[in-house]
Amino acid sequence: MPHESLRKLVPVPLTHVKLNDAFWAPRIQTNRNVTLPIEYEQCRKTGRIDAWKLDWKPGDPNPPHVFWDSDVAKWIEAAAYSLAAFPDAELEASVDGVIDMIAAAQQDDGYLNVHFTVVEPEKRWANLRDQHELYCAGHLMEAAVAYHDATGKRAFLDVMCRYADCIDATFGSAEGKKRGYPGHEEIELALVKLYRATGKQQYLDLATFFVNERGQEPHYFVEEATARGEDGEARRGSLDYHQAHLPVREQTTAEGHSVRACYLYAGMADVAAETGDEKLLKACKRIWRNIAERRMYIHGGVGSSRFGERFTFDYDLPNEGAYAETCAAIALVFFAHRMLQIEAHGRYADVMERALYNGTISGISLDGAHFFYDNYLASHPLRHRFSNQKSPERQEWFGCACCPPNIARLLSSLPEYVYSQSADGVWVHLYANGQAAVNLGDMTLQIDQKTKYPWKGKVRLTLTPDQPATFSLALRIPGWCRSFRIKVNGEKTAVRSEKGYVQLRRHWSPGDTVQLSLDMPVERIEAHPSVRHDCGRIALQRGPIVYCLEEADNGAGLNDIALPRDARLKTHVEPELLGGVVTISAKARRRRSEGWQNRLYSADASELVKTRIKAIPYAAWANRGPGEMIVWIRQA
Amino acid sequence: MPHESLRKLVPVPLTHVKLNDAFWAPRIQTNRNVTLPIEYEQCRKTGRIDAWKLDWKPGDPNPPHVFWDSDVAKWIEAAAYSLAAFPDAELEASVDGVIDMIAAAQQDDGYLNVHFTVVEPEKRWANLRDQHELYCAGHLMEAAVAYHDATGKRAFLDVMCRYADCIDATFGSAEGKKRGYPGHEEIELALVKLYRATGKQQYLDLATFFVNERGQEPHYFVEEATARGEDGEARRGSLDYHQAHLPVREQTTAEGHSVRACYLYAGMADVAAETGDEKLLKACKRIWRNIAERRMYIHGGVGSSRFGERFTFDYDLPNEGAYAETCAAIALVFFAHRMLQIEAHGRYADVMERALYNGTISGISLDGAHFFYDNYLASHPLRHRFSNQKSPERQEWFGCACCPPNIARLLSSLPEYVYSQSADGVWVHLYANGQAAVNLGDMTLQIDQKTKYPWKGKVRLTLTPDQPATFSLALRIPGWCRSFRIKVNGEKTAVRSEKGYVQLRRHWSPGDTVQLSLDMPVERIEAHPSVRHDCGRIALQRGPIVYCLEEADNGAGLNDIALPRDARLKTHVEPELLGGVVTISAKARRRRSEGWQNRLYSADASELVKTRIKAIPYAAWANRGPGEMIVWIRQA
Repeated sequence: MPHESLRKLVPVPLTHVKLNDAFWAPRIQTNRNVTLPIEYEQCRKTGRIDAWKLDWKPGDPNPPHVFWDSDVAKWIEAAAYSLAAFPDAELEASVDGVIDMIAAAQQDDGYLNVHFTVVEPEKRWANLRDQHELYCAGHLMEAAVAYHDATGKRAFLDVMCRYADCIDATFGSAEGKKRGYPGHEEIELALVKLYRATGKQQYLDLATFFVNERGQEPHYFVEEATARGEDGEARRGSLDYHQAHLPVREQTTAEGHSVRACYLYAGMADVAAETGDEKLLKACKRIWRNIAERRMYIHGGVGSSRFGERFTFDYDLPNEGAYAETCAAIALVFFAHRMLQIEAHGRYADVMERALYNGTISGISLDGAHFFYDNYLASHPLRHRFSNQKSPERQEWFGCACCPPNIARLLSSLPEYVYSQSADGVWVHLYANGQAAVNLGDMTLQIDQKTKYPWKGKVRLTLTPDQPATFSLALRIPGWCRSFRIKVNGEKTAVRSEKGYVQLRRHWSPGDTVQLSLDMPVERIEAHPSVRHDCGRIALQRGPIVYCLEEADNGAGLNDIALPRDARLKTHVEPELLGGVVTISAKARRRRSEGWQNRLYSADASELVKTRIKAIPYAAWANRGPGEMIVWIRQA
Repeated sequence: MPHESLRKLVPVPLTHVKLNDAFWAPRIQTNRNVTLPIEYEQCRKTGRIDAWKLDWKPGDPNPPHVFWDSDVAKWIEAAAYSLAAFPDAELEASVDGVIDMIAAAQQDDGYLNVHFTVVEPEKRWANLRDQHELYCAGHLMEAAVAYHDATGKRAFLDVMCRYADCIDATFGSAEGKKRGYPGHEEIELALVKLYRATGKQQYLDLATFFVNERGQEPHYFVEEATARGEDGEARRGSLDYHQAHLPVREQTTAEGHSVRACYLYAGMADVAAETGDEKLLKACKRIWRNIAERRMYIHGGVGSSRFGERFTFDYDLPNEGAYAETCAAIALVFFAHRMLQIEAHGRYADVMERALYNGTISGISLDGAHFFYDNYLASHPLRHRFSNQKSPERQEWFGCACCPPNIARLLSSLPEYVYSQSADGVWVHLYANGQAAVNLGDMTLQIDQKTKYPWKGKVRLTLTPDQPATFSLALRIPGWCRSFRIKVNGEKTAVRSEKGYVQLRRHWSPGDTVQLSLDMPVERIEAHPSVRHDCGRIALQRGPIVYCLEEADNGAGLNDIALPRDARLKTHVEPELLGGVVTISAKARRRRSEGWQNRLYSADASELVKTRIKAIPYAAWANRGPGEMIVWIRQA
């Protein structure tokens, strides 16, 4: 951990954390066994792999698209995390094969981009605003760092350092360099990873340059467009789409394309952490609050509008018309995870957990083979036919295929989100059955975590330092939890949660146990009164899990169901359902439609009939064929 | 009335009905004094008038658009109805000037279309599916008939007969003719008007051909596309957009572009009426029921999706995302008015009234100078910035300017919707203060209607036949009315409403009076339980007027307002507000937002606070600056 870093915490690395729980472990296994192979195959058969051969010629069909490089990069990154935890010679050979092709595609000056090498070579760096060169570069850098970490092989990392050097030679504030920055952010956080992996200051400096230059005047995107012969000023009003409407330190709200935005914010947090830039960190905090307090769906998704795939305005969170791209929820996890390391505050872990258990993994089917790009909070099976919405049935792939490999890399890196360590000790952010080994100074601490979380709130931690030692064990008390109890070695311990964590600082001996009980009743969640779409409605949440009603369990007409305020909410462990879930049932009411005959409107008050509802975890929806779904249930 | 007609009724013509009420008369006056002049000016300055000079040359800017002819035609038609009731030499001179240009633009063979004469002459009749030649022709025919009726001048009518003859020579089932029909319907009903105005059977036959040929195989649009070098079969799946997915007699639901659809259905009703085609009439009835019972907004608008400006599926009636184009509500009025003449059933008058008082006139501001294309049932002032919706502020004009002249022609022809006559007597469909003169056989009946409708439910009719006579007076009992009383010459009369009308058949003497009292309480209207957007909500309706809440009266956050089931709904006569309206007030509740601090989601049940609501007539919304609006209010 560099000395000047603002980070209070650093994550306990992936390779030191093993999950064997019933929630994540099967998903990670499916990701490894099903998702990674089919994504490779999709990349192959759509031409994304062979594109690296650079043999596409003008006139050939299927020209390599500007974002293809990034799809392959994310698949490599996902594979790398998987290899780090689960060595697999066949998978490693596949990755090496692709890396060989990538390395061979690198130009003499280090440049490395398929589209702008074979399709539009004359347009290299000519349109940073709309094209995806720096974005693709960032994903390749992330992949190279991950693959180096996983395998120790340097080849890809070296390739990407050469490319980073090429980019560094091209962009910057020095005379003769371009003062540009990406229209689709990503490279900022990637360069910080490359800096951390190599220790080369120039990569951190380049990341800092990209962050600092953004939105400055004269405006690069305006001048660049003018240089292309366009009316550069004409698009000034839409610079917020690229988070380039203001210098980043002056930005106060989350704006524009939500994936770009959250990648940028994550990169800003990284740069702030590594450079000790408190003013930049303040901008991150302001934007964080805007997201978490005004622009985030209850499932942790962000980006309310399909038009521009973007943030819109405060409290604008349409359910059926949601966008909430899978990638955006993942990017929000990245931002949250970084802010958590900097501030060690539960507010970030709460959002991270919310997104992880709900709005990210909703993007992949339980069979690991079908994907959502959009993560609606309400759905009708016919609506998309008459709109620009995507189908509410999961798809095997997308033309713009950013989401499938993104969810794959999130799942294969998931163990990294569980723990952090600080100068003081170890921090437990997420609860999941498994083990970890944490190197604290010259001491190694084994942690054994026994729990049925997220279905039950009891967690038993057994700490085995290789020698008795004094350190702090910080246990997260989730924001959703209203009451909890802690026992250390079987004895009740009175402790307070501060900033979302309980600190157990003591002299620990091998075999010491900590029992944490988080009360986990079903909660009726309201949204802020200004969220016009959710007024009069509640969402059911239990622990970190957000629930929904699906037509498969409740019949059609879900919006007519009204849940009385005093209805008892029962939980049911259903090991055979949807991979094993806890469902919620309750008595509710709906209108009798028989009385309506052929009327569309009526001044007669409807007769109500009793009904029972059954709610399932939101992330598991759309695994049983098409049908209606709602998260926000009317309250009677 | 031709002998074979299925029509039980014919409308009492415009020139025989005078309105001097407080609701319609001021709107008609504003239409005459403000709207018609500005629409002429808009047509002039956008090039729509001068386009008739046919002096546009390739390379010139602003090429005449394929639908420009129709905008000018609708303006002429609107002006003609106005001239019929309110002679105006200056307006008539303007119209004559335009007509002279139109006449001069007619080609030797009778063809008359600006775009396909000067811009793409080689594409005449080449793309009936997407272009608007027959649609423009239809609007010009309607205008010509209206102008002839208003002024007795034949020139324009003769021009349009020549054009109709040209079309008749081109289209039909005879050898060598095209078996085509319009992708945008309108000419069907126009040809029936031309037939009625001229008595020429060939125009009715041509209308019948267009109706009958629609959707037949081999499919004209498929073959036509193939002939253009396109993949004709590729678009087969979207033939429903043009109501050409099936022969019309096999159609059972309202599909596709809602304006095209309702113009077609109106034309089908006309053809059925004039040809006595009961099977075609049955198709009209089936489609009518589908609209009225499953696909119509409470304000009488239709077309739930902006994508394709179209009907979607049963009970799909989104409020904020509504389309409900002004033209579509007007087209539905045309369909309703025609079905009403055929069947003399109040179900048609109910929809006609609903659309007239709400979802049509919402398309024009009270000042007569600003227009809506879409008629939302809920609106947030920021939403359109992040969607493909039009601004929720009324506009001065549109690039596609179909709606402004359409609402103008509806308003200037409004008196025509009030009365009909039958072999038996006279029918009163709408209540509005004014006078009418009805020729019943060789007797002339003066009717004086005294009422403050729609604000009060009392109507006093004084009948003055020029000689005592026996006939039936049919008074409509609106579908919204649950109880009414009738007195004839001051004496209570026990009568039953049948098919929406009370029949008073007796020997009438000059000065006889009929007093009708329609009870008009405020009603809470529910939508069918399958309308997912309106579950748990009610709309306020009083008489024919649908109400809404506007931010101007109720502050922001309208969706958080909940109206208790037992809240007393008070009415207030407000002569100074919005041109003079009755408003509704009630005690309601909303959540206290102060308790929310910086939380977006909370498991704590919110505190409720008391509030008062004030509802205004929907059609008058958006006349006081931008702000939220809702029609469907949450019920507590």
